[in-house]
Parts: sequence; structure tokens; C-alpha cells
Amino acid sequence: MGEKIAFIGLGLMGSRMAVRLIDAGHSLTVYNRSPEATRPLAERGATVEDSPLHAAARSMIVMTMVSNDAAVRQVILGKNGALAGMEKGSTLIDLSSVHPDTSREIHKAAADRGVRMIDAPVAGSTPAAEQGLLLLMVGGDRLVYDQLRPVLEVLGKTVLYMGESGAGTTMKLVVNSLLGVQLQALGEAIAVGQKAGLSKDVILDVLGQTVAVSPLQKAKMENARKNEYPTQFPIKHMHKDLGLVLKLAADHGVPMPATAASHTNFSIEAGRDVDEDFSAIMRLAEELSGLST
Amino acid sequence: MGEKIAFIGLGLMGSRMAVRLIDAGHSLTVYNRSPEATRPLAERGATVEDSPLHAAARSMIVMTMVSNDAAVRQVILGKNGALAGMEKGSTLIDLSSVHPDTSREIHKAAADRGVRMIDAPVAGSTPAAEQGLLLLMVGGDRLVYDQLRPVLEVLGKTVLYMGESGAGTTMKLVVNSLLGVQLQALGEAIAVGQKAGLSKDVILDVLGQTVAVSPLQKAKMENARKNEYPTQFPIKHMHKDLGLVLKLAADHGVPMPATAASHTNFSIEAGRDVDEDFSAIMRLAEELSGLST
Amino acid sequence: MGEKIAFIGLGLMGSRMAVRLIDAGHSLTVYNRSPEATRPLAERGATVEDSPLHAAARSMIVMTMVSNDAAVRQVILGKNGALAGMEKGSTLIDLSSVHPDTSREIHKAAADRGVRMIDAPVAGSTPAAEQGLLLLMVGGDRLVYDQLRPVLEVLGKTVLYMGESGAGTTMKLVVNSLLGVQLQALGEAIAVGQKAGLSKDVILDVLGQTVAVSPLQKAKMENARKNEYPTQFPIKHMHKDLGLVLKLAADHGVPMPATAASHTNFSIEAGRDVDEDFSAIMRLAEELSGLST
Amino acid sequence: MGEKIAFIGLGLMGSRMAVRLIDAGHSLTVYNRSPEATRPLAERGATVEDSPLHAAARSMIVMTMVSNDAAVRQVILGKNGALAGMEKGSTLIDLSSVHPDTSREIHKAAADRGVRMIDAPVAGSTPAAEQGLLLLMVGGDRLVYDQLRPVLEVLGKTVLYMGESGAGTTMKLVVNSLLGVQLQALGEAIAVGQKAGLSKDVILDVLGQTVAVSPLQKAKMENARKNEYPTQFPIKHMHKDLGLVLKLAADHGVPMPATAASHTNFSIEAGRDVDEDFSAIMRLAEELSGLST
Repeated sequence: MGEKIAFIGLGLMGSRMAVRLIDAGHSLTVYNRSPEATRPLAERGATVEDSPLHAAARSMIVMTMVSNDAAVRQVILGKNGALAGMEKGSTLIDLSSVHPDTSREIHKAAADRGVRMIDAPVAGSTPAAEQGLLLLMVGGDRLVYDQLRPVLEVLGKTVLYMGESGAGTTMKLVVNSLLGVQLQALGEAIAVGQKAGLSKDVILDVLGQTVAVSPLQKAKMENARKNEYPTQFPIKHMHKDLGLVLKLAADHGVPMPATAASHTNFSIEAGRDVDEDFSAIMRLAEELSGLST
Repeated sequence: MGEKIAFIGLGLMGSRMAVRLIDAGHSLTVYNRSPEATRPLAERGATVEDSPLHAAARSMIVMTMVSNDAAVRQVILGKNGALAGMEKGSTLIDLSSVHPDTSREIHKAAADRGVRMIDAPVAGSTPAAEQGLLLLMVGGDRLVYDQLRPVLEVLGKTVLYMGESGAGTTMKLVVNSLLGVQLQALGEAIAVGQKAGLSKDVILDVLGQTVAVSPLQKAKMENARKNEYPTQFPIKHMHKDLGLVLKLAADHGVPMPATAASHTNFSIEAGRDVDEDFSAIMRLAEELSGLST
Repeated sequence: MGEKIAFIGLGLMGSRMAVRLIDAGHSLTVYNRSPEATRPLAERGATVEDSPLHAAARSMIVMTMVSNDAAVRQVILGKNGALAGMEKGSTLIDLSSVHPDTSREIHKAAADRGVRMIDAPVAGSTPAAEQGLLLLMVGGDRLVYDQLRPVLEVLGKTVLYMGESGAGTTMKLVVNSLLGVQLQALGEAIAVGQKAGLSKDVILDVLGQTVAVSPLQKAKMENARKNEYPTQFPIKHMHKDLGLVLKLAADHGVPMPATAASHTNFSIEAGRDVDEDFSAIMRLAEELSGLST
Repeated sequence: MGEKIAFIGLGLMGSRMAVRLIDAGHSLTVYNRSPEATRPLAERGATVEDSPLHAAARSMIVMTMVSNDAAVRQVILGKNGALAGMEKGSTLIDLSSVHPDTSREIHKAAADRGVRMIDAPVAGSTPAAEQGLLLLMVGGDRLVYDQLRPVLEVLGKTVLYMGESGAGTTMKLVVNSLLGVQLQALGEAIAVGQKAGLSKDVILDVLGQTVAVSPLQKAKMENARKNEYPTQFPIKHMHKDLGLVLKLAADHGVPMPATAASHTNFSIEAGRDVDEDFSAIMRLAEELSGLST
């Protein structure tokens, strides 16, 4: 028997996650800022509402999947935000990638109204969202995690408990700092190799045979090979996440020199405001080296 | 029927490689600066000589495996160096990791004497050396590569042709720049996660379940877990290699900001002059964050 | 006719500033965590109190000069903090270098109690504090700035209005980011010059004749020459300030790669927990280059 | 009584230096790749030649002022290069900013032909070149320095002896690494201040009143104020010089993290291939922060 779930935020990731929840038999009410994105969901039987508040009012579980801290605050705490519509004892699940302080702020606001809240950001890109192969990192009350796990497992086969409120979003930033710096490192390596006379194909072939590259890097290296970077995880989101991790670093006095260096390059690319995959950071390294790409 | 091979440089890696060559049926003459290291080889039947020149004089193939550019120059080009003892038509294989300019300089000096030379630096650490699982990246004349391949395959199952003289050492630096920055990135990620409240075990467990970590990183993360960094690839060698790649970058006008940032941290750790694995760079990140390790 | 002023925090800077206020004819009540530091002030006629609250209760102006955000919060907002003792209409001046968010938080807490508050951090080190040559950057209500200016001019001849609450501490961080990176740059320049064969004296002499060095750098270069770094501005404070500026940068999405790189080096040096001048960062650059210092 | 001087390279700097030499009564033969630049000199009485070789053949002193290592090699060592035309006992003065290895290579080639050579790169931009206010840093034989000093003092009032061949160009790179990082630091500081709410004018006014800014920075800050960067020292030259200093750093194992971080930003700006002053690096910091400039 399905749950009554409100799903707020139907972007690249959210739309795919919402489909999975419907397909798993849950009863969905959806909201999205631009209403076009709700249509495919409506066709599959979702109810469409015109505000997070109205969507939340019909549901015992509210999931939010939006693009940054400000958007999370707005759809949850803002005028016509979800929290105002939620019943005591219902559960709010924020799937967005935000600063852990934002998670804790929402958690407190929810608790003040008798609403339970967990942060459950996801690792993985659009294909993983489609296939339910995301990794979910959960922060908040362990009991809530235990109860909600079956629903979360519709989204990702790996659902891990990280600790108290904010621990999920903290872990997400840790993961993404690694991803971001790795692609920057790969870009630098590929650029210097080419300028020093190796062919790009040789470099990619050899790196692919070492124990140094991860499955993710291997996949992204094919983007570099074709010089095409179809968006799975938009570069502007990685730019934002590296900014958040540097903030976390500054909050806690942690020097992150390679992350900071990488963040600068992501700032350049994100500033171009093209909708591209974050792996396009490798192309920037080539470009800054004077390689025509 | 085995080849007559001189093997010069019996350090952590060289000693294991020399054993494999003997076991494969080749006839070895060995030289090492500190003679103690020659004993285990002598016991297996290697002839010991007191200079690279004398070792080279007995052999049609000369292999050198020493720790830096200066050492390579000395054992090959120096007084009593190998080159002076080599016959016309014999082959010099430098397995060391050096600047490609050094490879080309040696290549030219060899050619001037009618000696063939390839650079064939290896990726992989001591266990891989022991088991013949190294990756060899070969620069130089393709014909020489083709002929020498059977001997090189004793050392590593993957022997790849990279291009002209210096292409092997170039590729090796590309690989190591990636390795070095990745471990620095991992160190930064683990440090910020801990300072932000996650347990180290949780961080390592979760990272281990993502597509972000490579087999090498996975292995090194166990070092971080135990806070023990047994030497497989000494940090001073990685420090040297990152220095060489930055030189290559400067030669060719390639900005490598994440590599440069990582190199600084390796300088700190290498400056301590402790004989440790390069993965100890992760401990430095914790230390600089004020985490007691 | 002097004002009744409470002065809280008698460290390197605060003690000198308090003396100037007494000498200018103001009536001082002082508080310091470790009471020994109050003695020289008591001898000059200051009243000593055992808590910020008690000191504040006797005064229409309360000045705080402590070492970081946590200390500011404690002496102002904490149990027995100054704010609890202040009368409506009295004025709180925080001279500390903190994150602007902290300034704004205190400002709001003060306003809630009818207390006026400005942030007025100072640029300049101990000699400037002694001679009243500090630069004060003031954030808060312009009217309060105008009224308090004569008192502030006892501390520094240049007292500038920056804007609303937090603008003073923001400007202070801007200044210190510049100071910190400059000394790091100087350290790198001096190190590479020496390693490339120039004598340290020649380098310092030539740099001193260029338009590139500021008066501050010129003074600090004499520390480098003597390899003695007597504390005027402790390195741990600069480390903290660079951390705050990186936090500000992360708050606002500003890439600060040179600042981040410098912050890492300050982390190394500050981690040694020696009480030294921030210009000792130049010695670290020499040390990391393998120069014996 | 004037000297017979060949002046090769009449760019922004060289043209102004050549005029001063004529005005000081020397007899000039000039060469420039694009012949238009020779016209104003011809009008003042200079002889124009069609190759460095021909210009050098008429002169006892040959000065070269070109834009990079390749150009220096070409005009001196190349086909129709100056060296081939020079008499035994004549003197070659390279005023260009190049890697010290290039200086030493030229020095050796000159010595092999009995020609004396000093490297004498200059600090200062076009106005200083016009007014003879450059700073010259001289490497090479002290005796040659002593003899040539009167001629060099026509170009700059401060002519300093640095040491053996290459010491002049080494010192020049030290100076420019400082200049480059300082402007980057200034750019970062101005950007973060603005994003945190301060007006650009306030930031510039306050920084201008601190002991932190050098005369050069003060001048360049006026560019930032007007958001106009008229070329005195082209950004592509600073980009090249930072690349050379990083190469020097890599040669000698010196970590220069702030310099490397700055170099990346200069790569971005130089890659745009606009002919601008190096201080435009400050505008890039604003741009990367999302400030409209």
C-alpha cells in the first residue's frame, strides 16, 4: 500500500525520482516552480498543486529536491512553503544538497511545529536517478530513518545513516569535494600530457588501464575523448557544492588548498552560464593551456 | 634462452624487478651503490659488479632503476657509468621516473655511441613489482620496443608504446600527477568531514561505496582508517614527481593549480624526511586541520 | 572632561589602547580574563572588575578587544557578559576582528536592549597601538560614529566610516587578506631567488628599491633579513583572519585562490603553536624549499 | 663622446629606451621585426638595418630587448642573429626578461666567440622607460658591469650588480613574481569586499590609507577604480614571467602555491588575447565573483 507523498522540485533529478515513486505505487502530489515540468507526472497520475503548501497539506511525507540553500528555504520556510501545510507527526525529507547549517535550521523549524525532518541528499546523476541506483546519505533522527527507509530505497539501493541532522548534507559535500577535485586533477593531467607531446587518446587509454581511475572518472574520460560533455550533473551545481564545502572548511578551520584551486576553475566555467556537465572542467584545463578544443 | 642483462639500482622496486628477471631465466649482472642490496641477488645467481660500467660491459641489455634525474645521469653518463661500457647495438632501458628532457638527453648520448635506448618507467608499487603486475610506458624507437617487449613483460603484464624518446617518462608524470592530487583531495575531504562532525569510519565507508574512488584510493583509504602508512611508494618520490610535472607544466605553459597546491603539501611532508608511503599526505591534511591523529 | 569607559580585553593590543584612553583623561574600568594584565592599568588609576558585566555596569561606553568570534560572544552575550550590564542609550564598541555576521548578531542583540553598537576593528600592530596611530574602520549607525569619533581618535588618527553594522569588520578582513597574501608572496619570492643562486641580502636590497614593496613589507623584510620575527601581530591571529575571509568568500561565492593557498601555509605555521609574528610565514617558505634558516 | 650601439627590439619598452640612448648622444643602429617601428628612430638619426646581424656588425655594444626566450634566441643565436655579426671584445647586453638558463646559454655562446655578455633585465613600465627611471638588474662579469654602467644609467638611474650570468634575469623573475601575486591578492580583496557589501570606492580609499599598499599597487588601484587598464606592462608578459618563475621554482624544488594560484588566473586573462595591462587581473577577480564590471 503506497504512501501519500508530496514531491517538490521536478528538475533533472527530481522528475526522475518522482516517476520512480509513482511506479512503486505511491500516491504523489507534485509542485514545481515552472508548471510544465509537472505535466509528465500528471499523466502518470500525480496530483498537481500550485504551491508547496498545498502539496504538503495533502501528504504525510514531503520530499524536496531543489537546487540550492535559498530555494530550500523558500519552498519549505517561505510564504506558501511546505512546512506551513504539514501536519504534526508528518515527515519532511530534504533531498537537496545544501550547507548542513541549512539542514539544521530547517530541522529546528520543523521540530518547532511537531514535524519530523531528515536530510537525505543523493549521490549519483540522472541515469542513477532513473534506475533507482542513487546513494542516499541520511542525517536526523535514527528512528525516522528506520521508518522511512523503504520509501527511500525506491530512490536508491544504498541508503546510509550518517548521524544527526545535517550529517547527510555534510557527507554529500565531502563526496562532491572529492569528485570535483578529481576531475580538475584529471583535466590538468590530460592537458600537460598533450602539451608535452602525447596524444589525447594515448593518455586516456593508459590512464584507463591504471588503478588510479575510478568508475566515475572512467566514464567522464570518454567525455574528454569526444570533447562532448552531455549534462548529467550540471557544472553550476558542482560549483555551488565546492563553494559550500569551502564554507564548511572555513567554518571549521580546515585548509583545502586543492579544493580551493579547483573551485576557482569551476567558477570560471560556471560563470559562462552554459548548461553543461561538470566534467567540462577538463576542457577548461585544455583551453587554459592553449590547446584548441 | 635468457638474455644477458645488467640491472643497475636495487632499491625497493629494482630489487623485486631483478628477482623476476632471474626467475624468468635471464642471466643477470647487478650493481647497486650500497653493495648490501646485491647479496640476495647474488644468492640467486646474479653476478655482482662494482660499477655500472663493469656491469654494462657484460650485457646486451642494460636496465637502470634509480631514484631521480641526477642519479640517472650519474649511473649512465657519469664516470664509470653504464654507457661507457656498452657495445654498439646493445640496448639501454631506463625504468626510472625522470623529466622527459633527461630521457631525451640520455637517448641522444646513447645514439651518439650507437647504443639504442628506450625510457620505460613503471606505474605500480612494490607488490606489483613482485608479482610482475607493473604497467610500463615506453618511449623511444618503436622497433626497439617491439624487440624488447618479451623482456619487459616479465616486469609488467601491460607494456604500452607511448611514442618517441621521452614519451614514456612524460606519461609516467601524467599518471603520478593524478595519483598525487587524488590523495590530497581525499585527505582534504576526510579532514573536513571529520571536523564537521562525521566519524572517520563513516566517511571512509560511504566513500568506499561511491563510484568516486579508484582501486588505488580504496587501498590507501585503509591506511587512513588505521592511521598507518606502510611504504609502498615513498612520499619523497611522489614529491619529486610532482615537482617534475610542475616543471613540465611550466615548460609548456600549462596551469596546474590543484597539482601545485598538492605539491606544497607534499613538500611539507617530504621535508620531514620520514620514510613513509605517499598516502601519508592524508594524515597531513588531518594534522593541518587540528585533528589529532 | 573624560568619558566613563569599560575596556574589556587587555592583550597585546588592548592593553596599549587602554593606556592611551587613561592618558587622554578618560575614566576606565577594565576587565581581563587573566587578572595579571589588569595590574599596570590599575596602577594608572583604572578600576578593575571581575566580569564584563560588572565593568559594563559602571560605564556609558563599553569597548571590547578580544581575540576571536567565540571570545566576543562570550564577553558580550555570555553569562556575566557586558551587554547584560549596559544601560539603555549606552554604546558598545567592538574593536575585535571577527566575521561580519558576528558583528551583526551582536548589533541586533544590543539593539534589542536599547544599546547602540558599532564595530570598529583596527589595522596596525602594537607600536601603532601605543602611539595612537591605528586605523579604525567603523560599521554601524553613522550618528553613533559621529558622536564617538573623538574617543576613537585617541586610539587611531584615522577613523573611517564604512557603512552599516558589519562593514567595519568586513573592511578589516579585506585589509588582512591583502597583508597575509603579500607576505606569503614575499616569502615565495625570497625563497626561489635564494635557491636560484642569489644572496638573501641582494634580494632584499633590490626589492627594497622597487615600487613593489609597501612600507609594511619593507619593515617585515628586515625580519626576514635577520631571521627574527618579534611578535607585533601574532601569526595565529592572521591565520584566524584568513580563515574568516575565506568564509566570507564562500558566503558570497568569491574565488580567492591566492588567499586560500596562503591560508594553507599559515595553517602549517600556526599549527606549530609558537607565539610569533605573522611575518614568520616568510621563514616557512624558506624551510619548505629546503633552505636552512 | 657617444658609443656605437645596436638596439634590437623596438616594442613598447625598447622604442623608449632607444630614444633615450640617442638623446644621450650615442650613435644608434636599430633593428625591429616589423620595420614601421624603426621610423621614429630613423627620424632622430638612427641607422636602420634589416637584420640583427647587420645591426650588430656596426656596433661595439649590442642591446636586445625582445619579448621572450624564443625571440632572444632568434635575434641573438639565430640565422642572421646578432652574435654572428659581433666582433671579438664587443659586448652584448640582453635587456629582455627570460629564464636564467637562457641567459647562461647565450653567455656561453658569446664567450665561445670572444664576446662579452651581461643580462640586464629592467623593472619598470613605459613611463619609467621614457624618463630613464628603470631599475636594471645585472648578471655577468663584474668588470663588464663596471664598464657599461654609464651607458646603462641612461636607461635607469638604479643599476645594480646581482652576480654571475643569469643573476639579473633571476632577480627580475623574483620581482615580477611579487608584482603578479600582489595584484592578484588585491583583486581578490577588492572582490570579496564588494560582494560582502562595501563600495569599491570605500575599499580603495581605505586600502590607500594603510601601510599595506606599495606605490605600484596604489597606482594600479586607480585602474581598478576607473575600471580601465591602459597597458603599461602587458598582461601577456606578466603571464609569461609567472610561468618562468614557476619553472625556476620547479627547477629548484621551491613550492610557490600563491604564485601558482595567481598564474592560473593570469592564464585565463592572457588567453583572451586582449592587449591590456597586467593590472586587469583585478577585473578578472571581480568577474569570477559575479560582479558586473
